[in-house]
Amino acid sequence: MVARMVALITVDWGLSSFRAWAHAEDGTIVGRVAEPAGCAGLSREAFAPTLARLLAPLPKATVAMCGMVGSRQGWVEAPYVPCPAGLDEVAARLIQVADGIWLAPGLCCDGVQPDVMRGEECQILGSGIVDGVLCLPGTHSKWARIEGGKVRRFATFLTGEFYALLRRHSILAHSTAAERDDAAAFAAGVRRSRDEGGLSHHLFGVRTLDLFGRPSGAAYLSGLLIGAEIVGASNLFPSARVTLIGAPALAARYARALGDSRADILGEDMAARGLWAIWRRRIQA
Amino acid sequence: MVARMVALITVDWGLSSFRAWAHAEDGTIVGRVAEPAGCAGLSREAFAPTLARLLAPLPKATVAMCGMVGSRQGWVEAPYVPCPAGLDEVAARLIQVADGIWLAPGLCCDGVQPDVMRGEECQILGSGIVDGVLCLPGTHSKWARIEGGKVRRFATFLTGEFYALLRRHSILAHSTAAERDDAAAFAAGVRRSRDEGGLSHHLFGVRTLDLFGRPSGAAYLSGLLIGAEIVGASNLFPSARVTLIGAPALAARYARALGDSRADILGEDMAARGLWAIWRRRIQA
Repeated sequence: MVARMVALITVDWGLSSFRAWAHAEDGTIVGRVAEPAGCAGLSREAFAPTLARLLAPLPKATVAMCGMVGSRQGWVEAPYVPCPAGLDEVAARLIQVADGIWLAPGLCCDGVQPDVMRGEECQILGSGIVDGVLCLPGTHSKWARIEGGKVRRFATFLTGEFYALLRRHSILAHSTAAERDDAAAFAAGVRRSRDEGGLSHHLFGVRTLDLFGRPSGAAYLSGLLIGAEIVGASNLFPSARVTLIGAPALAARYARALGDSRADILGEDMAARGLWAIWRRRIQA
Repeated sequence: MVARMVALITVDWGLSSFRAWAHAEDGTIVGRVAEPAGCAGLSREAFAPTLARLLAPLPKATVAMCGMVGSRQGWVEAPYVPCPAGLDEVAARLIQVADGIWLAPGLCCDGVQPDVMRGEECQILGSGIVDGVLCLPGTHSKWARIEGGKVRRFATFLTGEFYALLRRHSILAHSTAAERDDAAAFAAGVRRSRDEGGLSHHLFGVRTLDLFGRPSGAAYLSGLLIGAEIVGASNLFPSARVTLIGAPALAARYARALGDSRADILGEDMAARGLWAIWRRRIQA
């Protein structure tokens, strides 16, 4: 599968998924692996053999990793780098966990409410954006302001986790059992999220609209939650435009909620690009 | 236990609890039963014998019930009475479910987002308040505006359900495992709920404060959720004062979050008083 020389393997290893990319000497991606093989629950001794097994389809090369693999419950804990932080700061704090295997630290920022990320910093730095506001939708969505190529500050929103919790365990489970991409219901949820009353009131509407024969379902719930995130994040990170990094379907949903004219969607593989750039910075230093 | 003649038994039968009161001819409460014997999951045939068993400690008399016993999954479905609704409207819609056993309907209000209650309407009407704003904290907290002795409109907030869900199933479970009545952490959560960013961002702070060695725990989580409810409800129901009806410890928590000078706390047994008043209205009509 790979004819060219492979200079680096980059890996984003989260709690629920594993992705790896093989880079040629100019950084081009020439091979990839994606497995639902998250590192949650792995014992410390299991990391090295699991990584070897997952990377078996790719040529051998130096490995640079990011994500929850560097958390306290991961392979080795990589202490957070405080913001503001860019390629230089992250490259300077790469940790060698085994022969030819490196780990990028996550970022933290402090204030009234401290915040942390692991993995998203590589996606952000991989975007090449020098100044702007980024949003990375997901289980724990991240919003970040970049200034002069450095992450100045960021904030986490529990949006994706809420969505799963409410559909699985709450009184809204019955009303949101079916997953449908209903654009009108999603838009109605986004509009509703801007009204007075707050999220914990608006959510009850998922149940009562169903009771009153106007079922809105999972798409309306998604609109309420994503809309509430955007209302809150827009206050913390005012910006005419927002750059989205994430799975295509989810990023497209956020773009609709933001208003398509306000949103730019970047392609995938940003973590690979970020780790490549961090590694280059490291070996040039 | 009861020397005086009993004129009426009132019952509030919810999904998770059963309470009953014996009333003398002037309405005075002369006996009571409280059991964790909710009606969730009871088959239709099981209601009559279960009620007889639960009421065995009290003298025999006519029974007036409210609560989820009147829902679609209850004994008999009592259709909601639309707002505005007071004693007259509810009394006119009492349903006889068996010989000497009556059921009060719940209330609904419609609009952008419909809303429903079952049981709380009796507590509200039992308060005797003619004009004002009431808050009934609980799994699904209710706020209501009373005008001229009628419930004009009301709104539900999922606060109590959120609190249980987040402690049991979310990333915040570990940080909120211990239940402590930490007044300072609760107050910090209430203050934080007024900041920009929104609930799904503020909640992540429960985790990160813990990560950064400033654990805030379940009391902070409670403050965030109750505070967010109050922010949202205060926009929907502006009022200099709020009357609280609920379990004493929870009502006291809400009073602290509102500012004690803004809050009045009513005693318990409001459901009994309301059902008594509804029944009197019925037999006088």
